[in-house]
Amino acid sequence: MLVLGVDCGTARTGYGVICSDGREHRLRAAGTIVTQAKRPLPERLLAIAGELRRVIRDEAPDAAAVEGVFHAVNARTALSLAHVRGIALLALAEAGLAVGEYSPLEVKMSVAGYGRAEKSQVQRMVHSLLALETGHVGSEDACDALAVAICHATHLSANQRMGGRSR
Amino acid sequence: MLVLGVDCGTARTGYGVICSDGREHRLRAAGTIVTQAKRPLPERLLAIAGELRRVIRDEAPDAAAVEGVFHAVNARTALSLAHVRGIALLALAEAGLAVGEYSPLEVKMSVAGYGRAEKSQVQRMVHSLLALETGHVGSEDACDALAVAICHATHLSANQRMGGRSR
Repeated sequence: MLVLGVDCGTARTGYGVICSDGREHRLRAAGTIVTQAKRPLPERLLAIAGELRRVIRDEAPDAAAVEGVFHAVNARTALSLAHVRGIALLALAEAGLAVGEYSPLEVKMSVAGYGRAEKSQVQRMVHSLLALETGHVGSEDACDALAVAICHATHLSANQRMGGRSR
Repeated sequence: MLVLGVDCGTARTGYGVICSDGREHRLRAAGTIVTQAKRPLPERLLAIAGELRRVIRDEAPDAAAVEGVFHAVNARTALSLAHVRGIALLALAEAGLAVGEYSPLEVKMSVAGYGRAEKSQVQRMVHSLLALETGHVGSEDACDALAVAICHATHLSANQRMGGRSR
């Protein structure tokens, strides 16, 4: 199945699409949507929504996931992020995609096997799991988005297997 | 000119459209978009965006405004509100509308002449300014949205007059 992960941010929103059976993952697409801080927020949201819709149209994912918003980051950043998260959830819902939501801890646990893994460890594991050379996914945000996609693919697959067993 | 005001909320989003020359204001449309707390957030955002787009299409406003998000409300509420605010700003930007943003203080100052006016005073003033009988605008959220629209209409008109004088 094709799984889209989105890492929301006002300045930089990462996205990544993987093809996965829950155990093996392959990179399909990844990128970063960059908006200019000096532009008005509605214009930046419009640009992010437009790009996310293009990715959804081009890649036609079967499932999607985003990270939750948490209060640990400062309040101003969290609010700004929540605006972008709102339009990401909207774009995914418009495409009829159910959206998985994971905490940063869950994503790290899933990808690096350790909830307090450092960013660089997560990035190395993303490259390793996708059988890519280190640094292949150029942007940190796209890498974070791929980590969310891998986390969701693993979770969906585990759920399916559990469902299969209990039947 | 036709001015749309939006009062964002996850459970209840108010909207109001007035026809205004900056001094006299008349009600064109007002309502509340209600979503169910038990439904997933993406579905609720989809419903709110759909209704806002319908209002924009039906009423074809010339200008629009929303309230800013402020940290005074609790963090959880502010985050939830910011998701809705994101999709409201997106819907307005998609329609090519520039968006005015005002603090609750500015709205109260503009409508009631006093920044610490109580909700009930603001609502009475909204009815008075629109030459409506008290209680005509059934919902508090729609009334708040109309207050934002009146504030914006007044502000735009004052700006135009100032611009005219300085030329």
